[in-house]
Amino acid sequence: MYKIGIDLGGTSIKAGLVSQSFEILLEKNTPTNISVGAENIIRRIAELADELVREAQIPEEQIQGIGIGSPGVIDRRRGVVLYSNNFYWENVPLLDILGTYTSRRAFIANDAQCAVLGELVAGAGVGCQDLVLLTLGTGVGSGIVVNGRIFEGGGGGGIYGHNIIVRNGEPCTCGRRGCAESYASATALIRRTRELVVSGKSPALAKLCSHDIQKVTGKTVFDAAKQSDPSSCALVKDYIEELGESIVNLINLFRPQKVLLSGGICNQGQYILEPLNKFVQENCYAGKYLPIAPVEIAKLGAKAGLVGAAALIHEVGSP
Amino acid sequence: MYKIGIDLGGTSIKAGLVSQSFEILLEKNTPTNISVGAENIIRRIAELADELVREAQIPEEQIQGIGIGSPGVIDRRRGVVLYSNNFYWENVPLLDILGTYTSRRAFIANDAQCAVLGELVAGAGVGCQDLVLLTLGTGVGSGIVVNGRIFEGGGGGGIYGHNIIVRNGEPCTCGRRGCAESYASATALIRRTRELVVSGKSPALAKLCSHDIQKVTGKTVFDAAKQSDPSSCALVKDYIEELGESIVNLINLFRPQKVLLSGGICNQGQYILEPLNKFVQENCYAGKYLPIAPVEIAKLGAKAGLVGAAALIHEVGSP
Repeated sequence: MYKIGIDLGGTSIKAGLVSQSFEILLEKNTPTNISVGAENIIRRIAELADELVREAQIPEEQIQGIGIGSPGVIDRRRGVVLYSNNFYWENVPLLDILGTYTSRRAFIANDAQCAVLGELVAGAGVGCQDLVLLTLGTGVGSGIVVNGRIFEGGGGGGIYGHNIIVRNGEPCTCGRRGCAESYASATALIRRTRELVVSGKSPALAKLCSHDIQKVTGKTVFDAAKQSDPSSCALVKDYIEELGESIVNLINLFRPQKVLLSGGICNQGQYILEPLNKFVQENCYAGKYLPIAPVEIAKLGAKAGLVGAAALIHEVGSP
Repeated sequence: MYKIGIDLGGTSIKAGLVSQSFEILLEKNTPTNISVGAENIIRRIAELADELVREAQIPEEQIQGIGIGSPGVIDRRRGVVLYSNNFYWENVPLLDILGTYTSRRAFIANDAQCAVLGELVAGAGVGCQDLVLLTLGTGVGSGIVVNGRIFEGGGGGGIYGHNIIVRNGEPCTCGRRGCAESYASATALIRRTRELVVSGKSPALAKLCSHDIQKVTGKTVFDAAKQSDPSSCALVKDYIEELGESIVNLINLFRPQKVLLSGGICNQGQYILEPLNKFVQENCYAGKYLPIAPVEIAKLGAKAGLVGAAALIHEVGSP
């Protein structure tokens, strides 16, 4: 049996034919072209699924369905994208529209939920029943698995990135101040690195980006810290502790077996994992009495979303 | 059929015979006397259960079991109190010890978990499937119900009070800084009211407590605010918003149908509920697209723990 996974992104739609053991057997990508509108994008999803099945020459009865990972706020039960700022979508009944173009069973979840499910079935979370994944990119996405299933509370929950960790802190894109996202995202790290360059306090950092803040990436401050630049070391320490506070908050609530991280910052590997795990071990509630999840790097990278989307079909009792 | 609920507190052990419809038919209280040690306290629980059954003249086969609410960190599956600072207990195998004194089936959860379950079956949460209760007292206890069952993630989770909302903020009893508990508890409100009295900025407040900070209660600052004392109004506003941030954080993750509050501060009723609900409605993530739980006052008061303890026996698939 085979599943079709769709990773619907702002730039491209990735579609994959996925085996029972969650290997991607065949993959097709196509530009999303947001301006063509929801109807056309969703029809394209149905077509990509058909193309995959045809090219792989799989008999129709061996296809279990289509799983879709979409950015935004999703009503999984009704199959509606309630809101996606990337796509300018509001209340798009994605699964209903898809149903007019295909008779295959289809399921949907948001991108971070698919990513954590992907890691659960085929990545760093294999063997876990309870798993948390934070995606550290433009924002902070959270995917939470409880007892082997995507957790969204009473519906639409499991959103951690817009939880406050610094009351009246940095402004967030969501309108609040001090959200986890405005501290732990790659965007936030880049913003603060730029501020440090502009402040003139770190000649080493300024040199690394050739005095051009446009050249600052999520890696720059780590490079400067590894050269023992004091301000950069302090910023890295702050970043790790702020990310750490978020992980501690999540462990206190969800007590997963592992916490996974993904995003470019994870290329720092042990350089961030070591101090991060130390911080988390020291700060979780009742750490002397309850096991504390290790923080690890996710394994599937950009493939997690596609694999996890396919795994939506597999998820026991998927809505 | 009948259930026995036990509310194990630092001052007294409350035991109740509870009907199928969660009415307390007969109640017995006894001082806890912590110094007699775990073994004696747990034996007393078994005895109280026997006394209730005997006095109510209920046939043994109509007693479904004993549910116990205990303070501290609980391993519900193994029936162990991992840690309780009130009792100076560490790794006390409560259900095993109880088993040496009674053959009745027994279940355990922490006090906030029992309180939310009590409200779910017989209080302000009747009809909800997903419910959050915050107990605002010495600390901030959190009881979370997801899909009709106590939520504790992978085990021992569901603890919100020690989540950070103000990084590097007020010191908390747990050793961290800026925990929700160090802002939203009654203790925190009293501490800040006292600071305001000492500061000399609020003559109205100083007068209300006769210039004696020992006379400050959780009510004092509300009384001064109702007299339009500017500093007290500002403190009440701060308190409500800090409690509000915590509620927003919990809604983003758990999307309950209601959020309930209990504790003496709830006597303020609409005076806190109105601004609190306004804050929560304005600040929840994706509030335009997902329903936002109303914040209400819990109904069962001090009885919630006992009723909820009895309801542990009722909980579908209780561990």
